[in-house]
Amino acid sequence: MRQTKIFTKTRKEAPKDEVSKNAKLLIRAGFINKEQAGVYDYLPLGLRVINKIENIIREEMNLMGGQELNLTALQEKKLWEKTDRWNDDVVDNWFKTKLSNGTELGLGFTHEEPLTNLLKDHVNSYKDLPLYIYQFQVKFRNELRSKSGIMRGREFLMKDLYSFSRTEEEHNNFYNSMKDSYTRVFEKVGLGDYTYLTAASGGSFGDNSDEFQTVSEAGEDIIYIDKDKKKAINKEIYADEVINSEGLNKSTLEEKKSIEVGNIFPLGTKFSDALELTFTDESGSQNPVIMGSYGIGIGRLMGTVVEVLSDEKGIVWPETISPFDAHIILMSPEDDEVRQYSDKIYNELNKSMHDILYDDRTKKAGEKLNDADLIGIPYQIIIGKKTLEEGKIEVKNRKNGEITHLDESAVLGGKFKV
Amino acid sequence: MRQTKIFTKTRKEAPKDEVSKNAKLLIRAGFINKEQAGVYDYLPLGLRVINKIENIIREEMNLMGGQELNLTALQEKKLWEKTDRWNDDVVDNWFKTKLSNGTELGLGFTHEEPLTNLLKDHVNSYKDLPLYIYQFQVKFRNELRSKSGIMRGREFLMKDLYSFSRTEEEHNNFYNSMKDSYTRVFEKVGLGDYTYLTAASGGSFGDNSDEFQTVSEAGEDIIYIDKDKKKAINKEIYADEVINSEGLNKSTLEEKKSIEVGNIFPLGTKFSDALELTFTDESGSQNPVIMGSYGIGIGRLMGTVVEVLSDEKGIVWPETISPFDAHIILMSPEDDEVRQYSDKIYNELNKSMHDILYDDRTKKAGEKLNDADLIGIPYQIIIGKKTLEEGKIEVKNRKNGEITHLDESAVLGGKFKV
Repeated sequence: MRQTKIFTKTRKEAPKDEVSKNAKLLIRAGFINKEQAGVYDYLPLGLRVINKIENIIREEMNLMGGQELNLTALQEKKLWEKTDRWNDDVVDNWFKTKLSNGTELGLGFTHEEPLTNLLKDHVNSYKDLPLYIYQFQVKFRNELRSKSGIMRGREFLMKDLYSFSRTEEEHNNFYNSMKDSYTRVFEKVGLGDYTYLTAASGGSFGDNSDEFQTVSEAGEDIIYIDKDKKKAINKEIYADEVINSEGLNKSTLEEKKSIEVGNIFPLGTKFSDALELTFTDESGSQNPVIMGSYGIGIGRLMGTVVEVLSDEKGIVWPETISPFDAHIILMSPEDDEVRQYSDKIYNELNKSMHDILYDDRTKKAGEKLNDADLIGIPYQIIIGKKTLEEGKIEVKNRKNGEITHLDESAVLGGKFKV
Repeated sequence: MRQTKIFTKTRKEAPKDEVSKNAKLLIRAGFINKEQAGVYDYLPLGLRVINKIENIIREEMNLMGGQELNLTALQEKKLWEKTDRWNDDVVDNWFKTKLSNGTELGLGFTHEEPLTNLLKDHVNSYKDLPLYIYQFQVKFRNELRSKSGIMRGREFLMKDLYSFSRTEEEHNNFYNSMKDSYTRVFEKVGLGDYTYLTAASGGSFGDNSDEFQTVSEAGEDIIYIDKDKKKAINKEIYADEVINSEGLNKSTLEEKKSIEVGNIFPLGTKFSDALELTFTDESGSQNPVIMGSYGIGIGRLMGTVVEVLSDEKGIVWPETISPFDAHIILMSPEDDEVRQYSDKIYNELNKSMHDILYDDRTKKAGEKLNDADLIGIPYQIIIGKKTLEEGKIEVKNRKNGEITHLDESAVLGGKFKV
């Protein structure tokens, strides 16, 4: 895509009220726009990243047998009263609203209740189970403070999967396989080296849960990590007995700030009991369904990548979620010969299905190079007068800054990933 | 996909409180679930249809030069006060909510205000225009009554595009080309024969607008259609002078009920004036941007297809938006030989990238055929004992009910669209 066809402009400064590094960089580079604290629009570049993250997760969820649907944000009071989660003293981050006739409604902050309720129409027998159902859906959470950019939104896109199993064993097998699935997701989006499977409390759901925590100074959590075993313990349950039960050793644990990028909860029969979701087993008796929930915030994941991988010049996208494969930078836009050559390279790469951002703007070379570093596409294909004279194309690796000179045929053959 | 891997079940009866034909059929066939009046979840089959409609529209909007983004539902009061649309006496279908600190927020029923405001950061010069920006985004509208199923939702997915032009001429050219674009969309989704470009009032925006109205008894609008010219006039502006200015003749117009499936509005400078979105022209003077808005409700479009094309047996999906290309029905699931043969056909079609729903359930043949008619996939590939004996595969066209007997090689070659 030609950069002149994208309406967003880069900017030197982020809005003064923006304090988080992720939002500052993403606003400056034109990926997001701030509507208000914790509420961000996704602009064309940002939406591309969101879609790539979504597709990586969707592929994984489908591999796990997940079925995708889409539940509504508007929720009826009576459903949530059954699990005692309507009360603002129990759940303090509801956004509530009203129908014209005065009927109270809530905006879903999660979806255990409506999905459990919906399944009553579709689950009767053990033959209907297990089920793994997920969605990418916008959650609303009335956070008291929201100063972490897109990492703690009041309105945000989330992948939430819910598992419905017949036995503890069936539940545990799936629950454990989701740990592997999530590990693959965080590796694929480029956070593998920084992300730890972390034992944590179960919050309102019970004894324990598992989190995926990415080490970052921007994090709101404290964890104790074992680098070799790639495991951690959340400070909230950090105690000798937990350290032992996790097979860790106090002497090798390091305290780190971290961002919770994913969490998985065993829900037991809390929701199926309250909402009466049961199944008939082989012997004909009725049993409650055993549930689990598995969440990843898509915006938070994107924000975490920016927090962890960016440098002083700007964002550094991993190839897998970069808005484009490469960024062609036309260095001498006023020179017809160079522009024609640059257009040719762009058109050829487009034809061979590479997804290219082409900086065809009539701006100074220095400004364009700075913008490219800010936007953070992993490979910069730099085309100027020298390119034509020397017959070599300069390719810069955004992450390590290394420059390689390639033959035209190598670039056109897609070998620009150097 | 194997039908045994989809959690939804068909049902004989819709919920008693459901009065609309579209929602009754879609609920019975397992495409949607009713949370409350005007609030529907999209289940796996329904989400497939939504995604197909989205992709048809996305392709068209990209052809028109549209840039996709995603704006938030949560909206700040101060922005909407500038255009006098915050007041409930002016806009009577707001859903409003509050931050924990008491600050009032609204849930966007449309997005002229936030997009116009956002563009102030990106538009300065005539060189930055024209711009065409769109999204697929969930709208919230606090409708007093909501009895039309997914055709009038309180929460619904909408494609809204906004145009930003420099001159009236530039605006008019784009506005007119969008009429053609919308015409193509409605043709592609199977509503071409029933859908009329309709002159209508401009509502709160001014003198006039253009609607796309689909003739249907389920419609809430009254229009006067000219079948040959494929044009219509909305009753709200039906008068001799309008008939003349549209080049129509009273004697050839028929009164019909209809569903508004799309609308396009010239907005003039109402929003750019109020929100101060201006650009510097070639001569250096400041001008307000000329705007237009262009909407299609995705759920409403899906509901309209069901209202207009279904028959007494169930839904009839056009190929372009059907959840699957074909529906294989295994008629004798208890017969190993037939099942193996049926599995083979399914696997081969899957390999050649056909998207097949495979009814591999152990149910009676009659029940399976009824379910297939209810679900409405355009081609049913019916495999039973007779198939094996006679060496021919029976294919039923859902729309006209005709049955064709094909060689296996024809079916496997994708020639089942008969």
